[in-house]
Amino acid sequence: MVKFSKRMDNMKDSAAVIRGLFGAMANPGMISFGGGALARESLPVDILREISQDILRKDTRGFEALSYGPVEGIKDLREVIVNELLNPKGIEADPENIMILTGGLEAMNLMCQVFIDPGDVILVESPTFVHSVEIFDMFQAKCISVEMDDDGMDVVDLEEKIKMHNPKMVYVIPTFQNPTGRTLSLERRKKVAELGSQYDVIILEDDPYRDIRYNGEELSPIKAFDKTGHTVLANSFSKIFSPGSRLGYILADKHIIDRIYDAKSATNSHTAILPQILCAEFFKRGHYREHLRMLCEVHRERRDAMMEALQKYFPEGTKWTYPDGGLFTWVELPGEINTTELLKESISDPNVMVAYVAGAGFFTDGGGKGRNSMRLCFSAVPPDKIFEGIEKLGNLIKSKLE
Amino acid sequence: MVKFSKRMDNMKDSAAVIRGLFGAMANPGMISFGGGALARESLPVDILREISQDILRKDTRGFEALSYGPVEGIKDLREVIVNELLNPKGIEADPENIMILTGGLEAMNLMCQVFIDPGDVILVESPTFVHSVEIFDMFQAKCISVEMDDDGMDVVDLEEKIKMHNPKMVYVIPTFQNPTGRTLSLERRKKVAELGSQYDVIILEDDPYRDIRYNGEELSPIKAFDKTGHTVLANSFSKIFSPGSRLGYILADKHIIDRIYDAKSATNSHTAILPQILCAEFFKRGHYREHLRMLCEVHRERRDAMMEALQKYFPEGTKWTYPDGGLFTWVELPGEINTTELLKESISDPNVMVAYVAGAGFFTDGGGKGRNSMRLCFSAVPPDKIFEGIEKLGNLIKSKLE
Repeated sequence: MVKFSKRMDNMKDSAAVIRGLFGAMANPGMISFGGGALARESLPVDILREISQDILRKDTRGFEALSYGPVEGIKDLREVIVNELLNPKGIEADPENIMILTGGLEAMNLMCQVFIDPGDVILVESPTFVHSVEIFDMFQAKCISVEMDDDGMDVVDLEEKIKMHNPKMVYVIPTFQNPTGRTLSLERRKKVAELGSQYDVIILEDDPYRDIRYNGEELSPIKAFDKTGHTVLANSFSKIFSPGSRLGYILADKHIIDRIYDAKSATNSHTAILPQILCAEFFKRGHYREHLRMLCEVHRERRDAMMEALQKYFPEGTKWTYPDGGLFTWVELPGEINTTELLKESISDPNVMVAYVAGAGFFTDGGGKGRNSMRLCFSAVPPDKIFEGIEKLGNLIKSKLE
Repeated sequence: MVKFSKRMDNMKDSAAVIRGLFGAMANPGMISFGGGALARESLPVDILREISQDILRKDTRGFEALSYGPVEGIKDLREVIVNELLNPKGIEADPENIMILTGGLEAMNLMCQVFIDPGDVILVESPTFVHSVEIFDMFQAKCISVEMDDDGMDVVDLEEKIKMHNPKMVYVIPTFQNPTGRTLSLERRKKVAELGSQYDVIILEDDPYRDIRYNGEELSPIKAFDKTGHTVLANSFSKIFSPGSRLGYILADKHIIDRIYDAKSATNSHTAILPQILCAEFFKRGHYREHLRMLCEVHRERRDAMMEALQKYFPEGTKWTYPDGGLFTWVELPGEINTTELLKESISDPNVMVAYVAGAGFFTDGGGKGRNSMRLCFSAVPPDKIFEGIEKLGNLIKSKLE
């Protein structure tokens, strides 16, 4: 039979992880702290019905919604991004510097198309988002990890690794990081931007969680400190609007956007138009402010429930991060518990039926890192179910320590 | 500045062609026979407003429409494809063999991810669809062209080229081909499938125009004659439903679909859900049959107008194809007219303002092929404007022959 391409050899493990994750979430009896979805109730179903009723008309934007559109995305959505999402965060930008994408993740795919040759090095946080690593693997990049602490990526280690490995790109999720929930400090944001300029390395800043903040002061994106165009900002509407709409964007200097345009055109021509119009109208009609307030309220309650439940039900000696926003906390268990093994029991034991993502998969450097850790996503589970699920999972863990 | 990947070196020319094409179409004063859009009036705006009103509700499919969904696409759309689009054409398939994509073109991207290493050979028709070649170029494939005649790809030349070049893939648009409008004969369809099996080569069948037939008998897809899984069928909803919805699909054996799943997951996770539900409901509610009848009626009239106008206004000695369906005719001019040069004048002379796509860009083997040819798309222009545009373009051509 015809052979698959060499790049597919690199994908077996990570693809299996993702598949397992989607599979576990699908069981209706499961309390799932896997995935990365928002509270179902927070999706703007009624607002989008109203908007779709207005725009899917021959005398409004109906023809536009169903026709071919521009590769770079519709103009009013790019304007909304600049005016409502970038300018308020201290980023000067022109709609010409924006490319609309089919979900935030497509940014990683296109950035690899445009920059990565097989064997090129990408520096990533340790741990980092497994789904992005899956993409880097497909493009035959070599991922090398940079140490993290509570303030995010360690910039001293970053500079050392840049000198040592001459990377093409640094991939960083600065705010409420996936999987740890940690946030890169302001000083380090400045330093990361500087290092990109100084060593001629692309900083790929992936920042989908930043607006879902529950406490603490907002920090400017790394991109706001970039003076040379080395930082490229990738973002998504999945957390602030709707994941099923598959909308995201890249902000970059024009010479990079021009090549992203070519790669986007050669991937799927352009992003679906109806979701773009619905999203642009959602902002233009002024729904975002109130929607975001509601989103933060709903998810803050869940974050608080998770923190309380972990305190109450997980064994002594457990450590976890206290995220100021976003969807995740990162838990390190005491003792010698292997969370990959534990997961099999946790999702199949009828007295538990709790899913999470085992920690090991988030480390690109292996060596057993993360084997006693887990990522818990609190956003998709109502507070009472968070308590129930964490109690059951805590009891299972305790039974292993006896 | 950071260097782009090697694959981007291959893309300069084709990307420029595409961009020019979109640019020319955007001028409202232009009569455009470029692009490949349908009659605007034939888009199902009212039907989709009605469906969206029903499904964007919390008690129907509103949450589903806005949430993350399966990588492979929603089940009912995959069932619709099998039951309404494949079974009636003699193709046995299971929804498990279908992957929903973000537009038909994404099939070419993902098939390259899964099968093409740099330097691998893809055999293509001569001429072939420029946008697919742009993708093959991005993946650093080597495109080698196979001769065509009025019955489509020459299978004798195909077998010879397979023996000579040991290709990974054969890319063929069998029905109302882009750019020529030609259709591969039944005998040749069988032969192409056989050659794939015999020589262990993937046949990538791209068949988006097949349902838009104005006359002549329907021919089974190549895939219907495939006994070994070597043929992969790519199709699109852009011509039979709506291009802006960006919906397409791949039908392939499970071991190939499994790898396409991995590549799709690492491209954009999955295709937007709302367009998928709208499309599935459109078929499930029984709109397709009447919609297709209307589509064929509207576009047959335009095909006929184009044939009549060419006869009337183009100079003696011009040759063109008579397409039994689809959107395109392929025109070869007499004399020494260079259509690439002519286009510059045709789109800028205020007395002409007619766009088309110059022929040379559709040939991967250069050598001046197609320099006197043009692709005319008749579907997006009303009959009276077809006569007006072809008269103006014909007069410009005649002035060059004097």
